[in-house]
Amino acid sequence: MVKADIRIELKHGVADPEGENTRKALELLGFKDIKSVKTVKLFEVEMDTDPEQAKEAAEEMCRRLLANPVIQTFRVDLK
Amino acid sequence: MVKADIRIELKHGVADPEGENTRKALELLGFKDIKSVKTVKLFEVEMDTDPEQAKEAAEEMCRRLLANPVIQTFRVDLK
Repeated sequence: MVKADIRIELKHGVADPEGENTRKALELLGFKDIKSVKTVKLFEVEMDTDPEQAKEAAEEMCRRLLANPVIQTFRVDLK
Repeated sequence: MVKADIRIELKHGVADPEGENTRKALELLGFKDIKSVKTVKLFEVEMDTDPEQAKEAAEEMCRRLLANPVIQTFRVDLK
């Protein structure tokens, strides 16, 4: 059994209004020193294969369904 | 400058319809061997402090704004 963390981030330069509004809200709550807040979508997928196949399958999942290549990048980490 | 990964997960037993529907969609696309898909909310917060303060601040952010303690747990990882 393999667990893959599939991390889907916005590409550099793509607006992240949720992150930006979270940063503003945290500042209003009194948190100083925050430079930026970025939101990331993470899928934790449990698979019943060996690690090598799991990584390949997870990357294929991103290409076919989970990520939008126009605005997002993805990274797969096995655990 | 410290980067904190704030990972907000649903507690065990809380329904995750987005994860469950993602699992179904992946299965329809032909991905076998998937046992489960869980969705996780991740905030990447950049702070201008030392690591110890950053970790404390990030945990306080979760308690005060980012996480709902009724259904979610959080974890802070510094990078």
